[in-house]
Amino acid sequence: MSASNEPAKLANIVVPMFAAEVASRFHLANGASANLVLGVAEQDDCAAYAMTGEQTIVFGSDYVRGPKFALYELGLLSNYDIGWYLAGANLSDIAAMGAVPVGLLSIIRYPKDLDDADFADIVRGIRDCCASVGAANVGGDVGTAERIILSASAFGVTEPDALLRRSGARLGQAVVVTGPTGLAGAVMKYCTRAGGEEVLTDAERDQLLIKWRRVAPRARHGRLFAASRGVSACIDTSDGLAGALQSLCSASGVGITVDAADIPVVSAVSRVAAALAVDPFEVVFGDSVDFELVATVDMDCLDELRQAARDQDLPLDTIGVVTEGTRPVLQRGDHLVPLPGAPWIHSS
Amino acid sequence: MSASNEPAKLANIVVPMFAAEVASRFHLANGASANLVLGVAEQDDCAAYAMTGEQTIVFGSDYVRGPKFALYELGLLSNYDIGWYLAGANLSDIAAMGAVPVGLLSIIRYPKDLDDADFADIVRGIRDCCASVGAANVGGDVGTAERIILSASAFGVTEPDALLRRSGARLGQAVVVTGPTGLAGAVMKYCTRAGGEEVLTDAERDQLLIKWRRVAPRARHGRLFAASRGVSACIDTSDGLAGALQSLCSASGVGITVDAADIPVVSAVSRVAAALAVDPFEVVFGDSVDFELVATVDMDCLDELRQAARDQDLPLDTIGVVTEGTRPVLQRGDHLVPLPGAPWIHSS
Repeated sequence: MSASNEPAKLANIVVPMFAAEVASRFHLANGASANLVLGVAEQDDCAAYAMTGEQTIVFGSDYVRGPKFALYELGLLSNYDIGWYLAGANLSDIAAMGAVPVGLLSIIRYPKDLDDADFADIVRGIRDCCASVGAANVGGDVGTAERIILSASAFGVTEPDALLRRSGARLGQAVVVTGPTGLAGAVMKYCTRAGGEEVLTDAERDQLLIKWRRVAPRARHGRLFAASRGVSACIDTSDGLAGALQSLCSASGVGITVDAADIPVVSAVSRVAAALAVDPFEVVFGDSVDFELVATVDMDCLDELRQAARDQDLPLDTIGVVTEGTRPVLQRGDHLVPLPGAPWIHSS
Repeated sequence: MSASNEPAKLANIVVPMFAAEVASRFHLANGASANLVLGVAEQDDCAAYAMTGEQTIVFGSDYVRGPKFALYELGLLSNYDIGWYLAGANLSDIAAMGAVPVGLLSIIRYPKDLDDADFADIVRGIRDCCASVGAANVGGDVGTAERIILSASAFGVTEPDALLRRSGARLGQAVVVTGPTGLAGAVMKYCTRAGGEEVLTDAERDQLLIKWRRVAPRARHGRLFAASRGVSACIDTSDGLAGALQSLCSASGVGITVDAADIPVVSAVSRVAAALAVDPFEVVFGDSVDFELVATVDMDCLDELRQAARDQDLPLDTIGVVTEGTRPVLQRGDHLVPLPGAPWIHSS
């Protein structure tokens, strides 16, 4: 057990962890490229990439609530897991733009007495999540604070004509999602409930917890969408499925009708909903950070997109259609009803 | 007095504040360009820039200790000031690379009961600091936390052959600094001291406090250095002047001899040092976040650089020379002594 100071942490933990990233090189379909020039090892004022050719760079920032994170405080997420989560949450935004995830800047502020092994676990989680999508952690800021504070910015590149905005949805398009939703929200509600029946086995609980422990940014899906002629809008479900659909509607000036029969629902989610005595769709559409992507695609390109996804072994569900209107609605049998599940409001 | 929720803050305060940034366009000397495609107004998953031509992009992140900030807690910095500081600290790193400051992603987490007017002041400070160097705030993350937490990432571009690294210092070069140091540290020590004589007038105190209230990223100096044939290394003094010189020595594998007679010292700093009974050079070289730049330049290009600085009305002091060795030393009369002022260690 030891808690070394910042220069020691940088020299002994951070720099060695990122020694291999110097080889980071990215090429786009149009020949443009981005090559790492200065990364963590150089410890310069900034990270730097040499860029050639026409490309659009995208970047976004997400703050993660360190130990205020309920599942971390319950011991269900490790330091490695929250490091992974930090990188995953940020890289998911890159995937949602249809871009290649390239680099991450991560801010790790830690209490003075945090053991070096715990600190190293956070850094390792960040590194491994980046590596899972071919990106690299190339800089950031390390130092003390009264508690763990994690924040990051991610950066990616895409061909100029392949950028996927929220505002691109068009009347008559199909709406697709990259996987079932509600898993993250269900297990959060389940693990933080006050008492009640144990309706999940440990294995089933872990199947849901993996959404928190190993965020899988849908970067391959994002690139598939970017390469498709027919996909014109995309967003991630970090504010829940209802929130994502509402944002697409607002940004694009359209409505979306989702067919209840087409929504993928995981059985463990249904059982959690039953145990909590709520409509399963409240959980599936509601506040759940599953980091799936929702995209809209021209109907005449849908089969081609589905086939391309199958060829790459990537799941894809068609859940609805873009309509006139201003908001998403749910078709349940013959009835159109408002979407269940209030979108996540960060200030609530 | 009112404290609205996050969607209301975004719609009513943040988005209108950045309506003009859509015009952000940057051109480099070699014809490469970066044009804003998606900024704050679009509220997409990421900000986006369209890039053409060969360029090096640089980006870095700095976390700012919100209300742990002693001067903020003392009421000597306003919400506007800490917003400005957040942007300034991050944009200074861009300047230190010789790059054009382009964009900022800012993370603002605030206590639920923070008044909207106070929140708006933070955002306005961020905006105005960005504007002071021609950059724009183009995204980030807004939400609640138990206290104010500020963090940001800045992004800039430069011609590939103009990137200024810490590791570029060469034997025999002159060492220049963009302005006097120790001001930020002196006023911090002065305002947080326990009792003692009032040796500064309010006007003198404010002359020092301006270093905290209106961080001036040395972006014009950075571009001047980048355009010079002879400048090969640069760093900012965010860890103090001694820390900056030590980092140049370590990264470049050289020594630096600084001549005491050439070091610019502000009289208010000397008076604070006298009042605190410390060597003024302890303050000038020590822990003081003045955000000046230190650069190294070939001797045969020094006059040209100084003339170019004069032509743009930019201060520049020549303070030393790059030598063989491994660390900076101070020439005081006939004696060579270690640099006074311990470099800032974030974990101390």
